[in-house]
Amino acid sequence: MVELINKKRLGMELTRSELEEFFFGYLKGQVMDYQMSAMLMAICIYGLSDREVFDLVDIFIASGISLDLSSLEATVDKHSTGGVGDKTTLIIGPIVSSCGVKVPKMSGRGLGHTGGTIDKIESIPGFRTDLTIDEFIDQLEHIGFALMSQTEELTPLDKMIYSLRDVTGTVESIPLIAISIMSKKIALGASHILIDIKLGKGALIKTKEEALEISRLMVEIGKKYQKEVRTLITNMDNPLGDMIGNTLEVLEAMETLRGRPSPLMDLCVEISSEMVSMGKNISLADARKRVLQVIENGDAFQQFLWFVEAQGGRLEELTLSETTTDVYASKSGVVKAIDALMMGNLSVHLGAGRLKKEDKIDPLAGIVIHKNVGATVEKGDVLYTVYYSEPLKVELNDEAFTIE
Amino acid sequence: MVELINKKRLGMELTRSELEEFFFGYLKGQVMDYQMSAMLMAICIYGLSDREVFDLVDIFIASGISLDLSSLEATVDKHSTGGVGDKTTLIIGPIVSSCGVKVPKMSGRGLGHTGGTIDKIESIPGFRTDLTIDEFIDQLEHIGFALMSQTEELTPLDKMIYSLRDVTGTVESIPLIAISIMSKKIALGASHILIDIKLGKGALIKTKEEALEISRLMVEIGKKYQKEVRTLITNMDNPLGDMIGNTLEVLEAMETLRGRPSPLMDLCVEISSEMVSMGKNISLADARKRVLQVIENGDAFQQFLWFVEAQGGRLEELTLSETTTDVYASKSGVVKAIDALMMGNLSVHLGAGRLKKEDKIDPLAGIVIHKNVGATVEKGDVLYTVYYSEPLKVELNDEAFTIE
Repeated sequence: MVELINKKRLGMELTRSELEEFFFGYLKGQVMDYQMSAMLMAICIYGLSDREVFDLVDIFIASGISLDLSSLEATVDKHSTGGVGDKTTLIIGPIVSSCGVKVPKMSGRGLGHTGGTIDKIESIPGFRTDLTIDEFIDQLEHIGFALMSQTEELTPLDKMIYSLRDVTGTVESIPLIAISIMSKKIALGASHILIDIKLGKGALIKTKEEALEISRLMVEIGKKYQKEVRTLITNMDNPLGDMIGNTLEVLEAMETLRGRPSPLMDLCVEISSEMVSMGKNISLADARKRVLQVIENGDAFQQFLWFVEAQGGRLEELTLSETTTDVYASKSGVVKAIDALMMGNLSVHLGAGRLKKEDKIDPLAGIVIHKNVGATVEKGDVLYTVYYSEPLKVELNDEAFTIE
Repeated sequence: MVELINKKRLGMELTRSELEEFFFGYLKGQVMDYQMSAMLMAICIYGLSDREVFDLVDIFIASGISLDLSSLEATVDKHSTGGVGDKTTLIIGPIVSSCGVKVPKMSGRGLGHTGGTIDKIESIPGFRTDLTIDEFIDQLEHIGFALMSQTEELTPLDKMIYSLRDVTGTVESIPLIAISIMSKKIALGASHILIDIKLGKGALIKTKEEALEISRLMVEIGKKYQKEVRTLITNMDNPLGDMIGNTLEVLEAMETLRGRPSPLMDLCVEISSEMVSMGKNISLADARKRVLQVIENGDAFQQFLWFVEAQGGRLEELTLSETTTDVYASKSGVVKAIDALMMGNLSVHLGAGRLKKEDKIDPLAGIVIHKNVGATVEKGDVLYTVYYSEPLKVELNDEAFTIE
């Protein structure tokens, strides 16, 4: 095993059988955490060849079971590489399934400044994310949209390695991110996959070049498995929408589905149209027409209500924290930018996210932005309101806002 | 801590306080093995700035106690970066101390294809290497040469990190090797240090450039601590001397001290002369005269006997394995080279060395080379003899010999 790490330390390519020996060895406990972390660091620094990436996707998938969704005809999965205030899954799931395309969705919890869809939806009292695979497929058949938390049964190797990367400074690697996402998507079994690659200050991916590279890799991986993969590269400099925090984001998703005008709506229409275009094999223009229709006629919102009900959620019990503080503008002008990373970190401090995996989150905590990018503000206007339960340990100010 | 690993993953320099936080954190158990191995891998790939090297030497030394040998006047330590058949310590210790220069020596055990001086000397029945520090200093005062195994009290951080590097493919790093050696030498407290940098197939250091770089680093580190450091870069393509194995190397050291002509003698005279020149502050030519004198008049050999007796060794009980096999030349010609790495690995297989730290060694096993580099051989001549106790698991042949 040490010889294989030595090879990678020198920047050499590993053969398929060497990768199998090392990574399956880790799964079996023969390779230790400290050996895997050294290997991962060498991979972060040197990268991987495409052949190594394809082999590792195979190995990650083979570490667990794969779902067979072929009975469902067209299924379109969607993934976002993570951002601040990204509640798009809760909006596009109902929209796309209202258009007759099944949306199987397995999501994760949040860590660090980016939130996780499972944390958000679980802020609805009673909502069950621990569906069995049978329940998941059954709900896809009858409702068309189902959301479950990651199970140990699919790609367990990814789960082990992701936990290790998280504590060893080896998260930011384009090939490792591509392998992690695509192995999970392929094991979940959808026939088409839409990847929303978040690019900018609040995202894992910071440069256009990295975004293009991960897009290329994901499409190539999809081809190996006869999956149609489309990618969108979308901005994540500013938070997505007006609300950050778990209950708050569910509320914003509902308002958006009800047709509230929002910059978030443009992104959701774009993603949904790509998904419907793939799932129905129609043009993007035709897909967009159907998407706009199900939003306007209320079908998408009704679909959201059915989806929540099917998974046991009681929307009528949704509450917000009663402790709030307003934060004021220190000068007048136009809001040019809102730093997504700073706002994401603030939401973690308020209790809406986790710094460590063991941390508990406060579903009621979060941020509502009143003056989003483009708004004109007067000194003293309320820029944003924070919701929280525990006494605040951070100073609140308008530093995240660029006002000119 | 993850932030510090991230910095190094991007190739950035860490400040002194960041290095202290991370490395003392590891000592205290706050940084995990898997985090340290990721950091070490990034260091192996990017290297370290000189400032980082100096800071880490300080940190390694501060992790344990340092000896005060100032009562002993001039003390000269010697270190070899490791090779095959390298028994020079057992020869130069008696020579240099016979010339009136104290030689404090702390040595390690062998791992992989290179042997360790402690394993070699312990093949003498009764020989104690677990001296207390008081015993060590007392013997230096009275005999002038003392040899002890590495203690947990000096540079414990080095011991922890060396064990981890060994199993994580992070051994081959010039700055990490320099830090490991120099922190131990400085903590041991000699006023002068001679480093024998082994270069070639059988050594850790494979290129001239690396040898020059580690030499430069070691001299610079010495300056920071007001230690005179001299380095020799010496060949390690061929095994050192005619014998490999623990008892065998003790026997060869004794024969060499008795004046048997040997290519090994030239190297030992060179190293000893540098050490006496430093310790007595005299020219290299004058030092060489004294060195040759104590070999010729038998003082050095007598010194060896006193040294062994002082540490409890019973030379009269030294035995060799009775099971031997001769290996013959498959063609005639002149021996141009003997592959040190192959011979080192063979000696490990015979039982003379360890593949894993837990392995037991057989002090009686080893190799005697009858036709060393430069010898003329006829097809069918005995090239070398192997000594062993356990049934052989390897094929014996003359592949390590280049005969032309």
